[in-house]
Formats: sequence, C-alpha cells, structure tokens
Amino acid sequence: MPLDDNWFSEQHAGIGSAWSARIKKKVFDQRSPYQHVEVYDTEGFGKLMVIDGCTMVSTLENFLYHEMMAHPVLFTHPDPRRVAIIGGGDCGTLREVLRHPGVEHCTQIDIDELVTRASELHFPELCEANDDPRAELLFIDGIQWMQQAEAGSLDVIIVDSTDPVGPGEVLFSTEFLTACQRALAPDGLIVQQSESPLAHLDLIQAMYARFGSAGFGDTRTLFFPQPIYPTGWWSATLAGRHGSLQHFREADARSKPFETRYYNADIHHAALVQPEFFRKAIGG
Amino acid sequence: MPLDDNWFSEQHAGIGSAWSARIKKKVFDQRSPYQHVEVYDTEGFGKLMVIDGCTMVSTLENFLYHEMMAHPVLFTHPDPRRVAIIGGGDCGTLREVLRHPGVEHCTQIDIDELVTRASELHFPELCEANDDPRAELLFIDGIQWMQQAEAGSLDVIIVDSTDPVGPGEVLFSTEFLTACQRALAPDGLIVQQSESPLAHLDLIQAMYARFGSAGFGDTRTLFFPQPIYPTGWWSATLAGRHGSLQHFREADARSKPFETRYYNADIHHAALVQPEFFRKAIGG
Repeated sequence: MPLDDNWFSEQHAGIGSAWSARIKKKVFDQRSPYQHVEVYDTEGFGKLMVIDGCTMVSTLENFLYHEMMAHPVLFTHPDPRRVAIIGGGDCGTLREVLRHPGVEHCTQIDIDELVTRASELHFPELCEANDDPRAELLFIDGIQWMQQAEAGSLDVIIVDSTDPVGPGEVLFSTEFLTACQRALAPDGLIVQQSESPLAHLDLIQAMYARFGSAGFGDTRTLFFPQPIYPTGWWSATLAGRHGSLQHFREADARSKPFETRYYNADIHHAALVQPEFFRKAIGG
Repeated sequence: MPLDDNWFSEQHAGIGSAWSARIKKKVFDQRSPYQHVEVYDTEGFGKLMVIDGCTMVSTLENFLYHEMMAHPVLFTHPDPRRVAIIGGGDCGTLREVLRHPGVEHCTQIDIDELVTRASELHFPELCEANDDPRAELLFIDGIQWMQQAEAGSLDVIIVDSTDPVGPGEVLFSTEFLTACQRALAPDGLIVQQSESPLAHLDLIQAMYARFGSAGFGDTRTLFFPQPIYPTGWWSATLAGRHGSLQHFREADARSKPFETRYYNADIHHAALVQPEFFRKAIGG
C-alpha cells in the first residue's frame, strides 16, 4: 500500500530500501550553517530527529545505539577518566558516558549547536547530564579540536557521527584517525559508528585498514540492532593503541551502578561475535 | 522524500513504521484459496516475496532467518533424525535442515502450494533440497497434520509461520503447541518464529506462557537481525520437553560439514543472550 503524506520516509541509496514512520506532525524545522534539522512527533517511535533527510534518533529505540556506543568501550578500558565524543550532538551518548562514576571529564565536540538545541527541546531525557560538572559541550570543528588536543590526553574517544557522506565524511579518514591515535594515552581506545554490516561491509573493511594505517593495533566490531537505520542492523568498530579488545572489565559490567535497557555483560560478549560472512570477509 | 510508484511498501500496524523496497517490476502475482502471493524484482534486495501485503523473503537477506530457524534447534537436540516444518513454504528452512547429515526425514507441511510454486520459480536456490529423498512436501493443514501425528514420532518441530494474524494465528495457540508437545519424543525440541523483541514483547511473553501450558519445560529466545521485518530485529523461541536449552552440541557446530553465512557456534551462544529489557520482562 503506498504511503500518503502522513509518513516521513528516508530512502537508502545503494541498497534500494526505505524506512518510514507515520507522523502526527512536524515539531521542529530549522537550518544551521551546516545542516537541516527537523523533529517529527510520530505515531509509534515517539519523537524522531532527522538531519538532512536522514533519521538520527527516535525516543523509542535510541537506547540501543547510545548504550552500545558508550558502555562496551568504557568497560574495555581499564580506567577511563578522560573521554571525548566527536559528534553526538543529541547528547544521548554523553548521558551514557557520565553514568560511569570513574569518568572525570567528558568533552562533546559537535560542530552544529542546532542539534543540541533541538535535542534539549524534544529529547530532554537525552540531555539530562548536560549540566553535570564533568560535562563540557563545545560547538566547534571536531577534527581541528582533535588535531590540537594534547598528545596522550584522552583515555577514550567516541566518534558518534553521521554517515560517511557530507559533514561526517572526514571523520572516517586516516588523517582524523591519526590525530585520534596521537591524542590517546598508551592504553587509549576509540570506538566509531561503522554503519550496517549487511549494506556497508566494504566501508567496515576500509575502516579496519585506516585504523591500521593510523597506528591502532587490535580492531573489533560490535553488532547491534538499530531499527531506524538502513537494514535495521548496525555496528560500531573499536580500536586500541595496545592490547586485546576481546577482554573487558566483566566484573565491573556485572556490578555496574546504573540501569541499562540493552547493554549488559553478556550482551557485551555477544555483540563482539562475528557472523560467519563477516568473519570470512574481515578475519578474526 | 515521498516514495513514488517504483516502491513496494509494507506498513507495520501498531508501531507506525513501514519498510519499502525500490522495485524494478512485479514478476509473480497469483491468488490461492488462502493467500495473495506476489514476487517483485527489486533494486537492492534481489527477489522479494510478499504474501497478503507482508514481506516474506528476499534474496539478499533470507539467509539470516533460515539459518537461525534451522541450525540452533538442530545443534541443541542430541540426535535429530525426524523433523517437521510447519509453514516454511518457500523451502529455505527445509534446505538448511537437510544440510544436517543425521536428519533422516524432514516433512514440510504448508497449507498453500502456491508459495512453493512461486519459490521454485523465483527462489530456486531455496528449493535445491526439495528433491532430496529425505524431503517430504505436503500441502495440507499443518494443525490437523500435527494432531494426527503419532505420539513421540518427531525429534524437532520448526514453526516457520507468518505473523500471528490471519492463517498463522492458530499456530500460536496453546492447542497447537499441545499437539506439538504430544508429537515430540521425550528429548524433542520446538522452535517458533516469535516476531520483534522491540515491537512484540507482549506476544513473546504470551508464547512463554503457552509453551508452559502446553507442557514444555525450558523456553529460550534467539535474537537475530531481519532487515525486511518490522524493526529489523527478529526472534525465534525454542522450547524443550525436558532439559536445558542453554547447552548445544558445540563441537559439532564448530566442525559442521556445511557452509553458512550467518550461523556459527559463537553466533549460537550470542543469539541466546537476553538484552537487559528482555531479561527484566521475561526473566532468566
């Protein structure tokens, strides 16, 4: 049955699919110098933020993405205190990071302040840690910030970016990853959203190569569901300066002092398991 | 951007989302006494079978579903020889079952022969085991067949059905599950597709109660991606007459004499892991 005007649709180039949500009304529509930011009130997904026509977050299921961008990397690092989030303007990843009592400082660097303003209005629950004294929100160029960061000054970098087209593209470059590698302390870790394992396997392969070129050692991918993104199946790729990423602070994850909705220690193990086609393509 | 006439769309009631595929042309369109069966040639998903407006299988990603309906249950049973598939008319699950050399007989009972005829024409790769001497294809009422099956005559039952509305609804009833329980040998196992963990948690909770009422013991859910179904995240629920479903023939799974694209022994473990919200709702 065709979709009438009561639907928002995002078409996925390359794979020829589309995801749509039935909308009640548009509640936000502004343009920044960088992007077009819209928020819809939907029938089943709560609020839905759309940037340049691409779905970003929904009330219903953003917990899947935000928990998986924050907790696996933070429980893999032995003692994460200094964290930077590149992108992440909706502030949902920041909130998850600051659930970790050991984190002393988390800087979120998103070039577009409009995304955070829209989130404060329509996703206030994602912004509830914005006033935490450990949080620093900067609205400047993340690449430049990373290039100017003091060497060895970060424990964890989370690249919570849009797709590798448009403003997000440079965040997938070897140059940017090299700057990240330099900014990390010796036991530092990076995690970056890495698109759909089914639709974008070539991108993930390229990312592994670029992490290697940038001086990272072990590289591993986390798999998790993501209903509003192409194929509904998503990934984030972890890389470390030294050591294995297979092990994590499992006892700490089992006794974590905060609630989650998707992540737990068993999910951490499960998310690292490679489907057979991925294992054959990437190795491991 | 709105979708023009070059798209097939399925709307998902309840959750207010829709999944669409850009189509080249419709290549099959017939009605049986039971259902309306269509096949589209799509831009990115290969062929796409649609029954009564709901997506069933696509060339691109059916391996996810068919492997997860067949291999976990077969590697959990100690020695599966006699298998029945209720539904499954596209024959993809049958093909996966017959990859197991120990299976002596597999009966596929789908009420609608038209589904198999459409699959033979447009998904020939899924039908490549239909001529296996161990395969028996019946086009009759699966509930009646199960009620008349000899007690204790089956090792594994796979309920590969449509959604629990329309013809598939009765397959989710306690009456049908009781007939399955009776037809299974003492160490027999059943697996049934159980919809989206995110959109249909209440259905899965009801299934657990019905498996219990039907006399099954341990009940566990497998989670896996399913791009063309609502939310892109799907599940199948396993139940056994006796014993635990946590353990499986892991050594056999690691040395399986056939290729897979998604399933492997580690994926088997990972698929059984409960996300935190599911664990809180269902227990375990």
